[in-house]
Amino acid sequence: MHRLADAAAAATEPHFRNTIAQDKGEHAFDPVTEGDRAGERAMREILADAAPDDTVIGEEYPARTGTSGWTWYLDPIDGTRAFLAGLPTWTTLIGLAAPDGTPVFGCIDQPVLGERYTGWPGGAELFRAGDRTRTPIRVSGCADLRRAVISTTDPFLLAPAEEGAWTHLRHTARLARYGLDAYAYARLAAGTIDLVAETGLKPWDTAALIPVVRGAGGLAMNWQGRPAGHGGQIVCAASEAVMDQALLALRRSAQ
Amino acid sequence: MHRLADAAAAATEPHFRNTIAQDKGEHAFDPVTEGDRAGERAMREILADAAPDDTVIGEEYPARTGTSGWTWYLDPIDGTRAFLAGLPTWTTLIGLAAPDGTPVFGCIDQPVLGERYTGWPGGAELFRAGDRTRTPIRVSGCADLRRAVISTTDPFLLAPAEEGAWTHLRHTARLARYGLDAYAYARLAAGTIDLVAETGLKPWDTAALIPVVRGAGGLAMNWQGRPAGHGGQIVCAASEAVMDQALLALRRSAQ
Repeated sequence: MHRLADAAAAATEPHFRNTIAQDKGEHAFDPVTEGDRAGERAMREILADAAPDDTVIGEEYPARTGTSGWTWYLDPIDGTRAFLAGLPTWTTLIGLAAPDGTPVFGCIDQPVLGERYTGWPGGAELFRAGDRTRTPIRVSGCADLRRAVISTTDPFLLAPAEEGAWTHLRHTARLARYGLDAYAYARLAAGTIDLVAETGLKPWDTAALIPVVRGAGGLAMNWQGRPAGHGGQIVCAASEAVMDQALLALRRSAQ
Repeated sequence: MHRLADAAAAATEPHFRNTIAQDKGEHAFDPVTEGDRAGERAMREILADAAPDDTVIGEEYPARTGTSGWTWYLDPIDGTRAFLAGLPTWTTLIGLAAPDGTPVFGCIDQPVLGERYTGWPGGAELFRAGDRTRTPIRVSGCADLRRAVISTTDPFLLAPAEEGAWTHLRHTARLARYGLDAYAYARLAAGTIDLVAETGLKPWDTAALIPVVRGAGGLAMNWQGRPAGHGGQIVCAASEAVMDQALLALRRSAQ
């Protein structure tokens, strides 16, 4: 996973703050950068050699179907809007799911900051590229939504019922942050954000996020309060108490 | 200014992601960290020795009135909510205003990222702590609001008329980012954000921001379309065209 993240960083970082965005479609704003494609190609080349029997699913290129039952999920630039705005909160996401579909290893890498968050069953750590240190990370354990720091990516992209739920959370919590994409889950795992609630996630997002959050002692569920699956509505929390308080609002708009 | 920023960084950075916030008041949420106070003390100590005749105005301590006519504006941690959430988009702001009140030198420093943006009459640059390079910076020159990346700090803190203006801008622009505080102006000066509109700024914010934005070729005005003063409603743009287009909306809610 570190080899994959290193290769993605080498491909994506030169394009940061130096890129011409391309739109995928005519209607939606969905920026794709040269770095996004270069990063996924770099990771796929490594996997073709190191894990030729595994399935590989990424955002930019067609899936490669393997025979081992294991599946890699790749998103070289999660947070393309932050990337386009020159903000160092985009990340590279790498997830590995077991044959039963459970995401077991995850990586959230931010190469400009030199912060790489990884998680696995029973643990999570922050690797800092600057001094090459590895530090175990742990969620805050904050048990009161009124004291919680919460985050969602774009409050203006929520459906009306979801927006109602978010407004409830926002008015209850201590403070809210926006536009962080996967970096919010990394900071939840590292203890400075206490709740993240989002909709419309993709399988390549959740496969990377869930092992990091759970490995750091956090909870990852869908808005119905069931264990999070692949994509969709996700809520992650630093404690069962905060999760329960958030679900009071989120369940009303659960799909 | 570099000495001041270095001293503030040494005082603030150890508290980042390792802090217990204190509330100033009983009612408003206005977090103040130990780092905020330590950073301002460190800068005031330098100015007491290096510029004993200048006025010093900061957020955390009472003003010191000097005799020279020159005024230093200090904000060791702008973006205390980002600081509390463990996000590296808070900044240290340092501004120097001439006897006629014009802000002439400004600094926006982010020590975790190692990015220091400075501006003066006719120029602006980015100093990177990592490799100690200095690079001239320049606004994008983007001339169409529909292609612009725009930013405001908190869309939920705007007054109703202001919110109407912001909604107009948000629906017109290419994409919007939130929660960046002064870091948005730094990225405007460096060419990746094209418009920033905010309300309720303080004199220690604008004194630092305006020289950086103007030095990089950007415009800084109030929402009436007059040159920006000390604090209040501010709009900064990468071109006259984007400024004119934004003011069509903002003037309606100008104070």
